[in-house]
Amino acid sequence: MDEFDLIERLMAPLADHPGAQGLKDDGAVLEVSPGHRLAMTKDMMAEDVHFLAADSPDLIARKLLRTNLSDLAAMGARPIGYLVGMALDAGRDEAWLAGFVDGLRQDQSSYGISLLGGDTIANPQGRLTLSLTLFGECPEGTTLARSGANVGDLIAVSGTIGDAALGLQVIRGELVPFNASHAEALACRYRLPQPRLDLGQGLLGLAHAALDISDGLIADAKHLADASSLALILEASRVPLSAAASDLLDKNESLLATVLSGGDDYELLFSFDPANERQVRAVARRAGVDITIIGHCEAGRSVRVSGRDGETISVLDAGWRYIT
Amino acid sequence: MDEFDLIERLMAPLADHPGAQGLKDDGAVLEVSPGHRLAMTKDMMAEDVHFLAADSPDLIARKLLRTNLSDLAAMGARPIGYLVGMALDAGRDEAWLAGFVDGLRQDQSSYGISLLGGDTIANPQGRLTLSLTLFGECPEGTTLARSGANVGDLIAVSGTIGDAALGLQVIRGELVPFNASHAEALACRYRLPQPRLDLGQGLLGLAHAALDISDGLIADAKHLADASSLALILEASRVPLSAAASDLLDKNESLLATVLSGGDDYELLFSFDPANERQVRAVARRAGVDITIIGHCEAGRSVRVSGRDGETISVLDAGWRYIT
Repeated sequence: MDEFDLIERLMAPLADHPGAQGLKDDGAVLEVSPGHRLAMTKDMMAEDVHFLAADSPDLIARKLLRTNLSDLAAMGARPIGYLVGMALDAGRDEAWLAGFVDGLRQDQSSYGISLLGGDTIANPQGRLTLSLTLFGECPEGTTLARSGANVGDLIAVSGTIGDAALGLQVIRGELVPFNASHAEALACRYRLPQPRLDLGQGLLGLAHAALDISDGLIADAKHLADASSLALILEASRVPLSAAASDLLDKNESLLATVLSGGDDYELLFSFDPANERQVRAVARRAGVDITIIGHCEAGRSVRVSGRDGETISVLDAGWRYIT
Repeated sequence: MDEFDLIERLMAPLADHPGAQGLKDDGAVLEVSPGHRLAMTKDMMAEDVHFLAADSPDLIARKLLRTNLSDLAAMGARPIGYLVGMALDAGRDEAWLAGFVDGLRQDQSSYGISLLGGDTIANPQGRLTLSLTLFGECPEGTTLARSGANVGDLIAVSGTIGDAALGLQVIRGELVPFNASHAEALACRYRLPQPRLDLGQGLLGLAHAALDISDGLIADAKHLADASSLALILEASRVPLSAAASDLLDKNESLLATVLSGGDDYELLFSFDPANERQVRAVARRAGVDITIIGHCEAGRSVRVSGRDGETISVLDAGWRYIT
């Protein structure tokens, strides 16, 4: 299968959007709705860094799309379409490509988006490397960004934290949950993020600052604190855990480090005025997503996490440790 | 240097555009001028496929930008900004990154564009793989695409053809021009494409179909023929050659195959109504680019190239050959 076959047989059926021009040209065009701005994001993934060689191609495709969708969720943008880039190593046959395209198709349909274009290159001596640029739109005048949090704001997260990082340990065989369905649930959270698009759009004009947690709760809290020039005070005991994560932490308290700093959560972390708590909860309910208040903003320039017994946990670049 | 240092110290100074938000967020926003549509393109490059390990990082960066700029030129779009993705292999140190960023800076300034965002990942077991998404805008209602050529149209190309493909052979030591300045000129054409942006924008509303030649003159002529559902009749003797290419072909006629099918030219191939030839020539003059009429469009669905002695040259998928 050469590049032109690939485009015509596998990719063109994904290009619903008129701006994709049936993938017959090198570029695509896009019109933005009146009163809206274009939002865009680009994430790359490489084998053995962001996914595992044995992962099925449809799940790789869906993770690639969803990590980007999660970025748009944090901007409060509605996704429209994407460009996909593939640098294919020697091991990718037609069955692999068909599986990858099948994953794109599934999630296109779930999220109402279209392929707009892209590029495929041979990378015979390298590893499989993927790149995706996702476009969306958000109303002019409203923004959701890392900066904008105020002293006194509450800090909340969506969903549960730490599952993906624990899931990666499960997949690697480093961690064996007693309960097999817990193992499956955690692995699934690593392989298939759940971008919180409805929540993000609902928080437009309501949250002061937001981001999606990809580097780890504490690292990303630091990004929000830095961008907003203030301190985030978080309580470890309030960080929401899934049943599977809870079960593991009950048996091994040291896994709290993995939960707080592991990353790949793709949940939203956001700040809002306490006076708007009721509205924020209503937005989350409409979006069908649980949210949990885990801290607040103070003057300063740091992240402070109080542990389960009230002591302060500090996180260094290389990882984390208790300092008192 | 970690990713945050890289962004803050090297990349953020390139992010002039307000929509880049100083690279403090995962995404960027863009407003399109009233009455315009957004044009976008994405090209990837991998080491040893699209550039050579020994190439200097600033030239790699500029080639990456310029191959994408050439796609926008073929759409008649004015470039605005870009997202850059880097999957860095083990060999990339800070000096390499600084050189790469320096190349981006040079061409940003030449082409009046801004970095908008991107992603950098580690790819320790792979090869250096790069991805760039470029944005531009074009006035609503006018388009330049591969489809749209009419029977009777003239076919023209900008600049000279074949230099880059010959240049690659020179760089590899497979071809040794007698004249050293010719060797340098050809190598430079491989390493640094010259996107024909002014010509492309000038051809909006005037050319019927256009594309940029990256796969090779004949392969790309076939793309235009297929997209426009007609035949392109080209005369090899009219294909414009540089002094360096001419000199080589005088000594070795078989290099004509390299010239016609080698690729990496990044010149525009376009069709227009013969009645508009004077206007087309005026546009090219204003853009400071030579154009040469090399053929015309007929009913059918193929590319026919007549050789220097009038015989027909046919090009197969794997390369090319004389059939009569």
